[in-house]
Amino acid sequence: MKKNYLLTPGPTPLPPQVCEALARPIIHHRTPQFQAILKEAVEGLKYVFQTKSDVFILSSSGTGAMEAAVANLLSSGDTAITVEGGKFGERWTELCSAYGVHSEIIKVEWGKAVTVEQIRSQVAGRRSQVKAVFVTLCETSTGVTNDIKAIAEVIKNTDTVLVVDAISGLGVIDLKTDEWAVDVVVSGSQKGLMLPPGLGFISISEKAWKLIEASKSPRYYFDLRAAKKAWGQADTPFTTPVSLVVALNTALKMLKEEGLENVFTRCRKMAEAVRAAASALGLKLYADASCASDAITAINVPSGLDGEKLVKTMRDIYGVTIAGGQAQLKGKSFRIATMGYINEFDIILALSCLEKVLYQMGYKFELGIGVRAAQEVFLK
Amino acid sequence: MKKNYLLTPGPTPLPPQVCEALARPIIHHRTPQFQAILKEAVEGLKYVFQTKSDVFILSSSGTGAMEAAVANLLSSGDTAITVEGGKFGERWTELCSAYGVHSEIIKVEWGKAVTVEQIRSQVAGRRSQVKAVFVTLCETSTGVTNDIKAIAEVIKNTDTVLVVDAISGLGVIDLKTDEWAVDVVVSGSQKGLMLPPGLGFISISEKAWKLIEASKSPRYYFDLRAAKKAWGQADTPFTTPVSLVVALNTALKMLKEEGLENVFTRCRKMAEAVRAAASALGLKLYADASCASDAITAINVPSGLDGEKLVKTMRDIYGVTIAGGQAQLKGKSFRIATMGYINEFDIILALSCLEKVLYQMGYKFELGIGVRAAQEVFLK
Repeated sequence: MKKNYLLTPGPTPLPPQVCEALARPIIHHRTPQFQAILKEAVEGLKYVFQTKSDVFILSSSGTGAMEAAVANLLSSGDTAITVEGGKFGERWTELCSAYGVHSEIIKVEWGKAVTVEQIRSQVAGRRSQVKAVFVTLCETSTGVTNDIKAIAEVIKNTDTVLVVDAISGLGVIDLKTDEWAVDVVVSGSQKGLMLPPGLGFISISEKAWKLIEASKSPRYYFDLRAAKKAWGQADTPFTTPVSLVVALNTALKMLKEEGLENVFTRCRKMAEAVRAAASALGLKLYADASCASDAITAINVPSGLDGEKLVKTMRDIYGVTIAGGQAQLKGKSFRIATMGYINEFDIILALSCLEKVLYQMGYKFELGIGVRAAQEVFLK
Repeated sequence: MKKNYLLTPGPTPLPPQVCEALARPIIHHRTPQFQAILKEAVEGLKYVFQTKSDVFILSSSGTGAMEAAVANLLSSGDTAITVEGGKFGERWTELCSAYGVHSEIIKVEWGKAVTVEQIRSQVAGRRSQVKAVFVTLCETSTGVTNDIKAIAEVIKNTDTVLVVDAISGLGVIDLKTDEWAVDVVVSGSQKGLMLPPGLGFISISEKAWKLIEASKSPRYYFDLRAAKKAWGQADTPFTTPVSLVVALNTALKMLKEEGLENVFTRCRKMAEAVRAAASALGLKLYADASCASDAITAINVPSGLDGEKLVKTMRDIYGVTIAGGQAQLKGKSFRIATMGYINEFDIILALSCLEKVLYQMGYKFELGIGVRAAQEVFLK
């Protein structure tokens, strides 16, 4: 008997209630019944996004929502700042480039967060020149969380719009969209929101709407002006993924019942437990301690060990799926997600599987010491 | 007790097997396990698309796949022909316009099909000038099927590429992509493919790839070059809607087991039954008899009757959801879908509900005469 456990940074495990919602007979999307579901979904998303601004549901992955941000806010020839500290930061640059937007890249060493000084020196005194700053809340490839609050503080009184990729951070770590003055937040369904992939989300501040109305970039499917117009009739411009939206309401209800603060605490404790276990096992974290994410932890593969084999053995022999290293970290790190429908005992089992495979691969450590370190964190 | 019956042109009813597949625990998309699922899905799609060319799965609605066609094939300043005989034909023009493509519009009277002569006179002698012709297989808003085989015959030996919106026709009525030489076919998941909305599909001929490589339109999320590159590793460029793809394989297996020809026959018979019933009830079809679609039948609301009330009563009182009229046909027509997981007895029940509500609304006819006309078709 092989049981499967998922500790990847999207898709995250589906709660049984969500599975049940996905399996319901489908209803037509242009009915009062579905309009009520859509309204409930948008209200629930506003709670998770911590915003009173517009939030739109797109039929796309998170990258589609990222493209919606770039294509709607900017025009060819505009200048924007992109923060590249990992694979997903680079995606902002690639998107800008696809739309002819000149991006001034802030290169951040992988494993570190962008500093407020880097942002300030790039933005200061150039109010109308830099139309948007694109950053990543949680850089999934490195396990780093950027300090969005501090970055927003620098930008909020300028004409520049702040856009945050919160695909793997939303509903996992705190992001006070309105309070911190974040203009645009994009996310997806398959991480903190405990759904299959297939929905993209985007919130838009009043300040951002001004850029959207001025943008000349070609867009149709992701045109947020059309989304706003349709939303006036509680509708979407194009057919929406009905089943995923129905299941979204189930997931949002779970998040609301747990309470966003409690969700953040749960995820933080799990990440602390993973970090404590890694430390006890003599493993090094990839991210700087100062910016280690509570959504995902990247751990360096000990020298001499085959990182890809480690991940494959855990998954294919024992059914415990964690993520390997991405891009330049392939084979050199592995990543354990602490987001979505995962709780402390899932972390314990994943760590015990990690220990088992490390042991079998010949890595020297005292069996149980990582699990115990995690238990201690959870007991506190 | 109210039971719900769906006879709308997308979403169509979900088979219980598909519901079950949607409810399965999710798996990670970058695993050998999911790669095998993806390969099976693409093979199955090729069967339904009747092509040996590339078919890509997009995380989008059908309109996203339409945008992928326009953005990948054409550049700003190019000229294309769009055929407008209903709301979805107009969407091609809108998409071209969004990307700065000059579209020469062939206006077709609603309810009629475009003629081969209209296409020929617009394309003839202008080989390199017109880069693409955009048509609709089944125009859902009017219940018209265009003669794609004849249109393709005109275009296949030119440099022009033929793009067909088969969103509501694929897996319902015949479309021999390779045999007829259709270059690009776009579709979606929620019609003939018996799935929830959320997947877009697009097939690309060798001839179309040449245009794609030359296009200068901004694109990233829908960039088919990236999709092709990823597919080399049995992957998608961005996270794919795992659950929908798993369920897609269930639906494709059902289509394969029934056999495409049998599916077409089933849908044609159901549409014939609807047309026969309408005729027996003294109701007029909106589409010309010569081009009435076997995927959906639009029926004119008898004068003096409130068409919106008819549709609402059937849905809200009796649980039978058919579609009302779209755009300029709002309140003036209603539409019964004969696509996807619908069989003859579903048509009978829908017609009996239609008769009941027509009767209650004071329309004069012999009760049962429509149902009986349909039964006769099914007995043949």
